[in-house]
Amino acid sequence: MKEPDKGRQPAKRAVILLSGGLDSATTLAIAIKQDFECYALSFDYGQRHLSEISAAQGLARQFGVKEHRTVRLDLGALGGSALTDNSITLPESPSEGIPVTYVPARNTVMLAYALAWSEVLKANDLFIGVNAVDYSGYPDCRPEFIDAFEKLANLATRAGVEEGGFRIHAPLINLSKAEIIGLGLDLGVDYAMTVSCYQASPEGKACGRCDSCRLRKAGFEQAGVKDPTRYLD
Amino acid sequence: MKEPDKGRQPAKRAVILLSGGLDSATTLAIAIKQDFECYALSFDYGQRHLSEISAAQGLARQFGVKEHRTVRLDLGALGGSALTDNSITLPESPSEGIPVTYVPARNTVMLAYALAWSEVLKANDLFIGVNAVDYSGYPDCRPEFIDAFEKLANLATRAGVEEGGFRIHAPLINLSKAEIIGLGLDLGVDYAMTVSCYQASPEGKACGRCDSCRLRKAGFEQAGVKDPTRYLD
Repeated sequence: MKEPDKGRQPAKRAVILLSGGLDSATTLAIAIKQDFECYALSFDYGQRHLSEISAAQGLARQFGVKEHRTVRLDLGALGGSALTDNSITLPESPSEGIPVTYVPARNTVMLAYALAWSEVLKANDLFIGVNAVDYSGYPDCRPEFIDAFEKLANLATRAGVEEGGFRIHAPLINLSKAEIIGLGLDLGVDYAMTVSCYQASPEGKACGRCDSCRLRKAGFEQAGVKDPTRYLD
Repeated sequence: MKEPDKGRQPAKRAVILLSGGLDSATTLAIAIKQDFECYALSFDYGQRHLSEISAAQGLARQFGVKEHRTVRLDLGALGGSALTDNSITLPESPSEGIPVTYVPARNTVMLAYALAWSEVLKANDLFIGVNAVDYSGYPDCRPEFIDAFEKLANLATRAGVEEGGFRIHAPLINLSKAEIIGLGLDLGVDYAMTVSCYQASPEGKACGRCDSCRLRKAGFEQAGVKDPTRYLD
Protein backbone atom coordinates (compact mmCIF):
# COMPACT_ATOMS: atom_id res chain seq x y z
CA MET A 1 0.00 0.00 0.00
CA LYS A 2 1.24 3.44 -0.87
CA GLU A 3 2.04 5.73 2.05
CA PRO A 4 -0.26 8.78 1.98
CA ASP A 5 1.71 11.98 1.38
CA LYS A 6 0.55 13.94 4.42
CA GLY A 7 2.43 17.12 3.56
CA ARG A 8 0.67 17.46 0.22
CA GLN A 9 -2.65 19.24 -0.25
CA PRO A 10 -5.04 17.97 -2.94
CA ALA A 11 -4.55 20.02 -6.10
CA LYS A 12 -6.76 23.10 -6.45
CA ARG A 13 -8.50 22.77 -9.78
CA ALA A 14 -9.21 25.65 -12.13
CA VAL A 15 -10.92 25.95 -15.49
CA ILE A 16 -9.17 28.33 -17.92
CA LEU A 17 -10.82 29.79 -21.01
CA LEU A 18 -8.13 29.31 -23.66
CA SER A 19 -8.74 30.86 -27.07
CA GLY A 20 -5.18 30.47 -28.28
CA GLY A 21 -4.60 34.24 -28.33
CA LEU A 22 -2.05 36.35 -26.49
CA ASP A 23 -4.30 37.19 -23.53
CA SER A 24 -5.56 33.69 -22.77
CA ALA A 25 -2.03 32.22 -23.11
CA THR A 26 -0.84 34.70 -20.48
CA THR A 27 -3.83 33.90 -18.26
CA LEU A 28 -3.02 30.18 -18.43
CA ALA A 29 0.59 30.90 -17.45
CA ILE A 30 -0.67 32.89 -14.43
CA ALA A 31 -2.97 30.07 -13.29
CA ILE A 32 -0.13 27.53 -13.63
CA LYS A 33 2.17 29.85 -11.64
CA GLN A 34 -0.50 29.98 -8.89
CA ASP A 35 -0.29 26.16 -8.59
CA PHE A 36 -3.71 25.36 -9.97
CA GLU A 37 -4.34 22.04 -11.66
CA CYS A 38 -5.53 23.51 -14.94
CA TYR A 39 -8.39 22.37 -17.19
CA ALA A 40 -8.42 24.34 -20.43
CA LEU A 41 -11.61 25.01 -22.38
CA SER A 42 -11.71 26.25 -25.98
CA PHE A 43 -14.65 27.00 -28.23
CA ASP A 44 -15.30 26.52 -31.88
CA TYR A 45 -18.00 29.16 -32.34
CA GLY A 46 -17.97 29.49 -36.10
CA GLN A 47 -14.90 31.71 -36.16
CA ARG A 48 -13.53 32.76 -39.50
CA HIS A 49 -10.54 30.50 -38.90
CA LEU A 50 -9.66 27.56 -36.72
CA SER A 51 -5.92 28.16 -36.43
CA GLU A 52 -6.49 29.69 -32.99
CA ILE A 53 -7.82 26.33 -31.78
CA SER A 54 -4.60 24.67 -32.99
CA ALA A 55 -2.71 27.37 -31.09
CA ALA A 56 -4.75 26.55 -27.95
CA GLN A 57 -3.87 22.86 -28.31
CA GLY A 58 -0.17 23.69 -28.54
CA LEU A 59 -0.31 25.97 -25.49
CA ALA A 60 -2.25 23.38 -23.46
CA ARG A 61 0.47 20.81 -24.20
CA GLN A 62 3.32 23.20 -23.47
CA PHE A 63 1.93 24.21 -20.09
CA GLY A 64 0.97 20.65 -19.17
CA VAL A 65 -2.74 21.24 -18.50
CA LYS A 66 -4.56 18.26 -17.01
CA GLU A 67 -7.20 18.21 -19.74
CA HIS A 68 -8.14 20.34 -22.75
CA ARG A 69 -11.61 20.29 -24.28
CA THR A 70 -13.00 22.11 -27.29
CA VAL A 71 -16.74 22.67 -27.29
CA ARG A 72 -18.71 23.49 -30.42
CA LEU A 73 -20.91 26.55 -29.91
CA ASP A 74 -23.82 27.35 -32.20
CA LEU A 75 -23.30 31.12 -31.86
CA GLY A 76 -22.53 31.43 -35.56
CA ALA A 77 -26.05 30.19 -36.35
CA LEU A 78 -27.47 33.13 -34.39
CA GLY A 79 -25.39 35.60 -36.45
CA GLY A 80 -24.85 39.26 -35.62
CA SER A 81 -21.03 39.61 -35.61
CA ALA A 82 -18.29 40.18 -38.14
CA LEU A 83 -16.39 37.34 -36.43
CA THR A 84 -19.04 34.71 -37.13
CA ASP A 85 -20.96 36.18 -40.07
CA ASN A 86 -19.02 36.38 -43.33
CA SER A 87 -21.44 38.93 -44.76
CA ILE A 88 -20.11 41.59 -42.32
CA THR A 89 -16.80 43.18 -43.40
CA LEU A 90 -13.94 43.28 -40.90
CA PRO A 91 -12.83 46.84 -40.12
CA GLU A 92 -9.22 47.89 -40.72
CA SER A 93 -9.34 51.15 -38.79
CA PRO A 94 -10.50 51.93 -35.24
CA SER A 95 -14.22 52.72 -34.82
CA GLU A 96 -16.36 54.46 -32.18
CA GLY A 97 -18.57 52.52 -29.76
CA ILE A 98 -19.00 48.75 -29.69
CA PRO A 99 -17.10 47.22 -32.65
CA VAL A 100 -18.73 45.01 -35.32
CA THR A 101 -16.40 42.22 -34.20
CA TYR A 102 -18.39 42.01 -30.94
CA VAL A 103 -20.02 38.55 -30.76
CA PRO A 104 -23.40 38.79 -28.99
CA ALA A 105 -23.18 37.57 -25.40
CA ARG A 106 -20.03 35.58 -26.22
CA ASN A 107 -18.32 35.84 -22.85
CA THR A 108 -21.60 35.08 -21.07
CA VAL A 109 -22.02 31.88 -23.08
CA MET A 110 -18.39 30.81 -22.64
CA LEU A 111 -18.37 31.50 -18.91
CA ALA A 112 -21.64 29.57 -18.55
CA TYR A 113 -20.04 26.51 -20.16
CA ALA A 114 -16.90 26.95 -18.07
CA LEU A 115 -19.12 27.11 -14.99
CA ALA A 116 -20.84 23.86 -15.95
CA TRP A 117 -17.51 22.09 -16.41
CA SER A 118 -16.13 23.59 -13.18
CA GLU A 119 -19.05 22.14 -11.34
CA VAL A 120 -18.55 18.67 -12.78
CA LEU A 121 -14.82 18.84 -11.95
CA LYS A 122 -15.46 20.33 -8.48
CA ALA A 123 -13.22 23.23 -9.48
CA ASN A 124 -13.96 26.45 -7.59
CA ASP A 125 -11.80 28.74 -9.71
CA LEU A 126 -12.29 29.99 -13.22
CA PHE A 127 -9.84 32.11 -15.23
CA ILE A 128 -10.69 34.38 -18.15
CA GLY A 129 -8.27 36.66 -20.02
CA VAL A 130 -10.57 39.62 -20.57
CA ASN A 131 -9.01 43.02 -20.69
CA ALA A 132 -10.86 46.29 -20.14
CA VAL A 133 -8.09 48.60 -21.35
CA ASP A 134 -7.52 47.67 -24.96
CA TYR A 135 -10.98 46.17 -25.58
CA SER A 136 -13.03 48.82 -23.82
CA GLY A 137 -15.58 48.67 -26.62
CA TYR A 138 -16.75 45.19 -25.59
CA PRO A 139 -19.31 45.40 -22.76
CA ASP A 140 -18.55 41.87 -21.55
CA CYS A 141 -14.87 42.67 -20.87
CA ARG A 142 -15.55 45.12 -18.00
CA PRO A 143 -14.89 44.47 -14.30
CA GLU A 144 -18.58 45.00 -13.45
CA PHE A 145 -19.49 42.21 -15.89
CA ILE A 146 -17.03 39.82 -14.24
CA ASP A 147 -18.35 40.72 -10.77
CA ALA A 148 -21.95 40.15 -11.91
CA PHE A 149 -21.01 36.76 -13.35
CA GLU A 150 -19.33 35.71 -10.12
CA LYS A 151 -22.49 36.62 -8.18
CA LEU A 152 -24.62 34.69 -10.68
CA ALA A 153 -22.31 31.67 -10.51
CA ASN A 154 -22.66 31.46 -6.76
CA LEU A 155 -26.47 31.49 -7.01
CA ALA A 156 -26.68 29.24 -10.04
CA THR A 157 -24.85 26.13 -9.02
CA ARG A 158 -24.67 23.35 -6.50
CA ALA A 159 -21.04 24.24 -5.76
CA GLY A 160 -21.95 27.87 -5.11
CA VAL A 161 -24.82 26.90 -2.82
CA GLU A 162 -23.50 23.80 -1.02
CA GLU A 163 -19.71 24.28 -1.20
CA GLY A 164 -17.20 27.09 -0.96
CA GLY A 165 -18.39 29.03 -3.96
CA PHE A 166 -16.81 30.11 -7.21
CA ARG A 167 -14.20 32.74 -7.86
CA ILE A 168 -13.85 34.28 -11.32
CA HIS A 169 -10.27 35.43 -11.92
CA ALA A 170 -9.64 38.06 -14.60
CA PRO A 171 -5.97 38.79 -13.89
CA LEU A 172 -5.41 40.91 -17.03
CA ILE A 173 -8.46 43.11 -16.67
CA ASN A 174 -6.62 46.32 -15.80
CA LEU A 175 -3.35 45.73 -17.66
CA SER A 176 -2.22 47.32 -20.92
CA LYS A 177 -1.21 45.04 -23.79
CA ALA A 178 2.46 45.92 -23.14
CA GLU A 179 2.10 44.97 -19.45
CA ILE A 180 0.43 41.67 -20.39
CA ILE A 181 3.32 40.85 -22.75
CA GLY A 182 5.92 41.72 -20.11
CA LEU A 183 4.18 39.51 -17.55
CA GLY A 184 3.79 36.62 -19.98
CA LEU A 185 7.44 36.70 -21.04
CA ASP A 186 8.45 36.47 -17.35
CA LEU A 187 6.21 33.39 -17.04
CA GLY A 188 7.66 31.66 -20.11
CA VAL A 189 4.93 32.30 -22.68
CA ASP A 190 6.16 31.85 -26.26
CA TYR A 191 4.00 34.39 -28.09
CA ALA A 192 5.03 32.98 -31.47
CA MET A 193 2.66 30.10 -30.60
CA THR A 194 -0.35 32.39 -30.09
CA VAL A 195 -2.81 33.60 -32.73
CA SER A 196 -4.73 36.85 -32.21
CA CYS A 197 -5.63 37.84 -35.79
CA TYR A 198 -9.35 37.91 -36.68
CA GLN A 199 -8.59 36.50 -40.13
CA ALA A 200 -5.48 34.38 -39.66
CA SER A 201 -4.52 31.91 -42.38
CA PRO A 202 -5.08 28.18 -41.76
CA GLU A 203 -1.39 28.01 -40.73
CA GLY A 204 -1.97 30.76 -38.13
CA LYS A 205 -0.29 33.61 -40.04
CA ALA A 206 -1.66 37.05 -39.14
CA CYS A 207 -2.99 39.73 -41.50
CA GLY A 208 -1.33 42.58 -39.58
CA ARG A 209 -4.22 44.95 -40.34
CA CYS A 210 -7.33 43.99 -38.32
CA ASP A 211 -8.15 45.58 -34.91
CA SER A 212 -6.69 42.65 -33.05
CA CYS A 213 -3.41 42.66 -35.03
CA ARG A 214 -3.02 46.41 -34.55
CA LEU A 215 -3.47 46.18 -30.77
CA ARG A 216 -1.06 43.29 -30.54
CA LYS A 217 1.60 44.94 -32.70
CA ALA A 218 1.41 48.16 -30.67
CA GLY A 219 1.73 46.07 -27.47
CA PHE A 220 5.05 44.56 -28.55
CA GLU A 221 6.31 48.00 -29.59
CA GLN A 222 5.33 49.57 -26.25
CA ALA A 223 6.84 46.65 -24.35
CA GLY A 224 10.07 47.20 -26.26
CA VAL A 225 10.09 43.56 -27.35
CA LYS A 226 10.63 42.10 -30.81
CA ASP A 227 7.24 41.05 -32.25
CA PRO A 228 7.42 37.25 -32.82
CA THR A 229 4.10 37.13 -34.72
CA ARG A 230 4.14 35.26 -38.03
CA TYR A 231 2.65 37.68 -40.57
CA LEU A 232 1.34 36.89 -44.04
CA ASP A 233 3.54 39.46 -45.77
CA MET B 1 -47.32 52.38 -52.25
CA LYS B 2 -48.81 50.92 -49.12
CA GLU B 3 -50.24 53.38 -46.61
CA PRO B 4 -48.31 53.18 -43.31
CA ASP B 5 -50.50 51.92 -40.49
CA LYS B 6 -49.99 54.80 -38.07
CA GLY B 7 -52.03 53.31 -35.26
CA ARG B 8 -49.87 50.22 -35.08
CA GLN B 9 -46.76 49.91 -32.91
CA PRO B 10 -43.89 47.73 -34.14
CA ALA B 11 -44.17 44.28 -32.57
CA LYS B 12 -42.35 43.81 -29.27
CA ARG B 13 -40.12 40.81 -29.74
CA ALA B 14 -39.43 38.19 -27.08
CA VAL B 15 -37.31 35.06 -26.93
CA ILE B 16 -38.98 32.14 -25.14
CA LEU B 17 -37.10 29.11 -23.83
CA LEU B 18 -39.29 26.23 -25.01
CA SER B 19 -38.39 22.75 -23.79
CA GLY B 20 -41.66 21.16 -24.84
CA GLY B 21 -42.70 20.50 -21.24
CA LEU B 22 -45.73 21.68 -19.32
CA ASP B 23 -44.07 24.77 -17.82
CA SER B 24 -42.49 26.17 -20.98
CA ALA B 25 -45.72 25.59 -22.98
CA THR B 26 -47.59 27.67 -20.39
CA THR B 27 -44.88 30.33 -20.49
CA LEU B 28 -45.16 30.58 -24.28
CA ALA B 29 -48.94 30.99 -23.98
CA ILE B 30 -48.41 33.84 -21.48
CA ALA B 31 -45.95 35.64 -23.79
CA ILE B 32 -48.36 35.30 -26.73
CA LYS B 33 -51.21 36.64 -24.56
CA GLN B 34 -49.00 39.66 -23.72
CA ASP B 35 -48.77 40.45 -27.47
CA PHE B 36 -45.10 39.65 -27.90
CA GLU B 37 -43.83 38.52 -31.28
CA CYS B 38 -42.36 35.25 -30.05
CA TYR B 39 -39.08 33.57 -31.01
CA ALA B 40 -38.83 30.11 -29.46
CA LEU B 41 -35.50 28.53 -28.57
CA SER B 42 -35.04 24.83 -27.78
CA PHE B 43 -31.92 22.89 -26.86
CA ASP B 44 -30.69 19.45 -27.67
CA TYR B 45 -28.31 18.97 -24.75
CA GLY B 46 -27.83 15.24 -24.86
CA GLN B 47 -31.11 14.48 -23.12
CA ARG B 48 -32.10 10.89 -22.68
CA HIS B 49 -34.83 11.40 -25.29
CA LEU B 50 -35.64 13.84 -28.05
CA SER B 51 -39.43 13.57 -27.97
CA GLU B 52 -39.57 16.80 -25.98
CA ILE B 53 -38.01 18.63 -28.95
CA SER B 54 -40.78 17.24 -31.18
CA ALA B 55 -43.26 18.50 -28.59
CA ALA B 56 -41.62 21.95 -28.71
CA GLN B 57 -41.96 22.00 -32.52
CA GLY B 58 -45.67 21.17 -32.27
CA LEU B 59 -46.25 23.88 -29.64
CA ALA B 60 -44.31 26.47 -31.66
CA ARG B 61 -46.54 25.76 -34.68
CA GLN B 62 -49.75 25.78 -32.67
CA PHE B 63 -49.01 29.14 -31.06
CA GLY B 64 -47.73 30.67 -34.32
CA VAL B 65 -44.29 31.71 -33.10
CA LYS B 66 -42.35 33.82 -35.60
CA GLU B 67 -39.35 31.49 -35.58
CA HIS B 68 -38.27 28.35 -33.71
CA ARG B 69 -34.64 27.30 -33.43
CA THR B 70 -33.06 24.28 -31.82
CA VAL B 71 -29.45 24.68 -30.71
CA ARG B 72 -27.17 21.74 -29.99
CA LEU B 73 -25.47 22.10 -26.59
CA ASP B 74 -22.39 20.13 -25.66
CA LEU B 75 -23.43 19.87 -21.99
CA GLY B 76 -23.68 16.08 -22.24
CA ALA B 77 -19.95 15.93 -23.04
CA LEU B 78 -19.22 17.63 -19.72
CA GLY B 79 -21.28 15.01 -17.82
CA GLY B 80 -22.40 15.25 -14.22
CA SER B 81 -26.18 14.73 -14.42
CA ALA B 82 -28.58 11.81 -14.54
CA LEU B 83 -30.33 13.61 -17.40
CA THR B 84 -27.29 13.64 -19.68
CA ASP B 85 -25.17 10.80 -18.31
CA ASN B 86 -26.63 7.32 -18.77
CA SER B 87 -24.37 5.88 -16.06
CA ILE B 88 -26.36 7.74 -13.37
CA THR B 89 -29.65 6.06 -12.42
CA LEU B 90 -32.84 8.11 -12.45
CA PRO B 91 -34.52 8.25 -9.02
CA GLU B 92 -38.10 7.06 -8.59
CA SER B 93 -38.68 8.54 -5.15
CA PRO B 94 -38.16 12.08 -3.78
CA SER B 95 -34.69 12.84 -2.39
CA GLU B 96 -33.20 15.47 -0.06
CA GLY B 97 -31.10 18.39 -1.37
CA ILE B 98 -30.21 19.02 -5.01
CA PRO B 99 -31.45 16.10 -7.14
CA VAL B 100 -29.18 13.98 -9.38
CA THR B 101 -31.28 15.15 -12.33
CA TYR B 102 -29.77 18.64 -11.87
CA VAL B 103 -27.76 19.49 -15.02
CA PRO B 104 -24.73 21.63 -14.10
CA ALA B 105 -25.34 25.31 -14.90
CA ARG B 106 -28.04 24.37 -17.41
CA ASN B 107 -30.25 27.42 -17.00
CA THR B 108 -27.19 29.69 -17.06
CA VAL B 109 -26.07 28.22 -20.39
CA MET B 110 -29.56 28.32 -21.91
CA LEU B 111 -30.21 31.90 -20.79
CA ALA B 112 -26.82 32.93 -22.17
CA TYR B 113 -27.76 31.57 -25.61
CA ALA B 114 -31.19 33.17 -25.39
CA LEU B 115 -29.49 36.45 -24.55
CA ALA B 116 -27.24 36.17 -27.60
CA TRP B 117 -30.22 35.53 -29.87
CA SER B 118 -32.23 38.33 -28.22
CA GLU B 119 -29.45 40.72 -29.00
CA VAL B 120 -29.29 39.70 -32.66
CA LEU B 121 -33.09 40.02 -32.91
CA LYS B 122 -33.16 43.29 -30.96
CA ALA B 123 -35.58 41.64 -28.56
CA ASN B 124 -35.54 43.14 -25.06
CA ASP B 125 -37.64 40.47 -23.37
CA LEU B 126 -36.81 36.92 -22.50
CA PHE B 127 -39.20 34.34 -21.00
CA ILE B 128 -38.23 31.27 -18.99
CA GLY B 129 -40.61 28.81 -17.33
CA VAL B 130 -38.66 28.15 -14.15
CA ASN B 131 -40.61 27.37 -11.04
CA ALA B 132 -39.30 27.70 -7.50
CA VAL B 133 -42.14 25.86 -5.76
CA ASP B 134 -42.06 22.36 -7.17
CA TYR B 135 -38.39 22.39 -8.20
CA SER B 136 -36.95 24.02 -5.10
CA GLY B 137 -34.03 21.60 -5.22
CA TYR B 138 -32.59 23.25 -8.34
CA PRO B 139 -30.50 26.32 -7.45
CA ASP B 140 -30.98 27.89 -10.87
CA CYS B 141 -34.79 27.99 -10.56
CA ARG B 142 -34.84 30.54 -7.72
CA PRO B 143 -35.95 34.20 -8.01
CA GLU B 144 -32.51 35.42 -6.86
CA PHE B 145 -30.91 33.52 -9.74
CA ILE B 146 -33.27 35.17 -12.25
CA ASP B 147 -32.59 38.62 -10.77
CA ALA B 148 -28.82 38.03 -10.95
CA PHE B 149 -29.09 36.96 -14.59
CA GLU B 150 -31.08 40.07 -15.47
CA LYS B 151 -28.37 42.25 -13.90
CA LEU B 152 -25.68 40.33 -15.79
CA ALA B 153 -27.58 40.62 -19.07
CA ASN B 154 -27.75 44.37 -18.78
CA LEU B 155 -24.00 44.60 -18.22
CA ALA B 156 -23.05 41.96 -20.77
CA THR B 157 -24.60 43.16 -23.95
CA ARG B 158 -24.77 45.99 -26.41
CA ALA B 159 -28.56 46.13 -26.00
CA GLY B 160 -28.23 46.39 -22.22
CA VAL B 161 -25.63 49.12 -22.47
CA GLU B 162 -26.78 51.15 -25.49
CA GLU B 163 -30.53 50.43 -25.58
CA GLY B 164 -33.38 49.97 -23.15
CA GLY B 165 -32.03 46.89 -21.44
CA PHE B 166 -33.27 43.37 -21.01
CA ARG B 167 -36.06 42.04 -18.87
CA ILE B 168 -36.10 38.38 -17.83
CA HIS B 169 -39.67 37.18 -17.29
CA ALA B 170 -40.24 34.11 -15.12
CA PRO B 171 -44.02 34.23 -14.84
CA LEU B 172 -44.39 30.80 -13.22
CA ILE B 173 -41.74 31.23 -10.57
CA ASN B 174 -44.08 31.41 -7.58
CA LEU B 175 -46.96 29.25 -8.87
CA SER B 176 -47.79 25.69 -7.85
CA LYS B 177 -48.06 23.05 -10.59
CA ALA B 178 -51.87 23.10 -10.18
CA GLU B 179 -51.94 26.89 -10.62
CA ILE B 180 -49.74 26.64 -13.74
CA ILE B 181 -52.11 24.07 -15.24
CA GLY B 182 -55.17 26.20 -14.46
CA LEU B 183 -53.55 29.25 -16.07
CA GLY B 184 -52.44 27.32 -19.15
CA LEU B 185 -55.88 25.79 -19.71
CA ASP B 186 -57.39 29.30 -19.64
CA LEU B 187 -54.84 30.33 -22.32
CA GLY B 188 -55.59 27.37 -24.58
CA VAL B 189 -52.62 25.11 -23.86
CA ASP B 190 -53.23 21.51 -24.92
CA TYR B 191 -51.18 19.63 -22.31
CA ALA B 192 -51.51 16.37 -24.25
CA MET B 193 -48.94 17.93 -26.63
CA THR B 194 -46.36 18.50 -23.88
CA VAL B 195 -43.72 16.04 -22.65
CA SER B 196 -42.33 16.35 -19.10
CA CYS B 197 -41.04 12.83 -18.43
CA TYR B 198 -37.28 12.41 -17.91
CA GLN B 199 -37.34 9.12 -19.81
CA ALA B 200 -40.20 9.48 -22.30
CA SER B 201 -40.43 7.01 -25.19
CA PRO B 202 -39.48 8.21 -28.70
CA GLU B 203 -43.23 8.78 -29.27
CA GLY B 204 -43.39 11.03 -26.20
CA LYS B 205 -45.11 8.55 -23.87
CA ALA B 206 -44.35 9.13 -20.17
CA CYS B 207 -43.05 6.61 -17.62
CA GLY B 208 -45.33 7.89 -14.84
CA ARG B 209 -42.69 7.20 -12.17
CA CYS B 210 -39.80 9.72 -12.41
CA ASP B 211 -39.69 12.93 -10.33
CA SER B 212 -41.03 14.98 -13.21
CA CYS B 213 -43.95 12.61 -13.92
CA ARG B 214 -44.89 12.52 -10.23
CA LEU B 215 -44.98 16.32 -9.94
CA ARG B 216 -47.00 16.63 -13.13
CA LYS B 217 -49.50 13.95 -12.14
CA ALA B 218 -50.03 15.53 -8.71
CA GLY B 219 -50.53 18.91 -10.44
CA PHE B 220 -53.44 17.64 -12.52
CA GLU B 221 -54.97 15.98 -9.45
CA GLN B 222 -54.69 19.15 -7.39
CA ALA B 223 -56.08 21.26 -10.23
CA GLY B 224 -59.04 18.87 -10.40
CA VAL B 225 -58.44 18.32 -14.10
CA LYS B 226 -58.27 15.05 -16.05
CA ASP B 227 -54.61 14.21 -16.74
CA PRO B 228 -54.21 14.15 -20.58
CA THR B 229 -50.65 12.72 -20.42
CA ARG B 230 -49.98 9.73 -22.66
CA TYR B 231 -48.46 7.09 -20.36
CA LEU B 232 -46.56 3.95 -21.35
CA ASP B 233 -48.79 1.60 -19.32
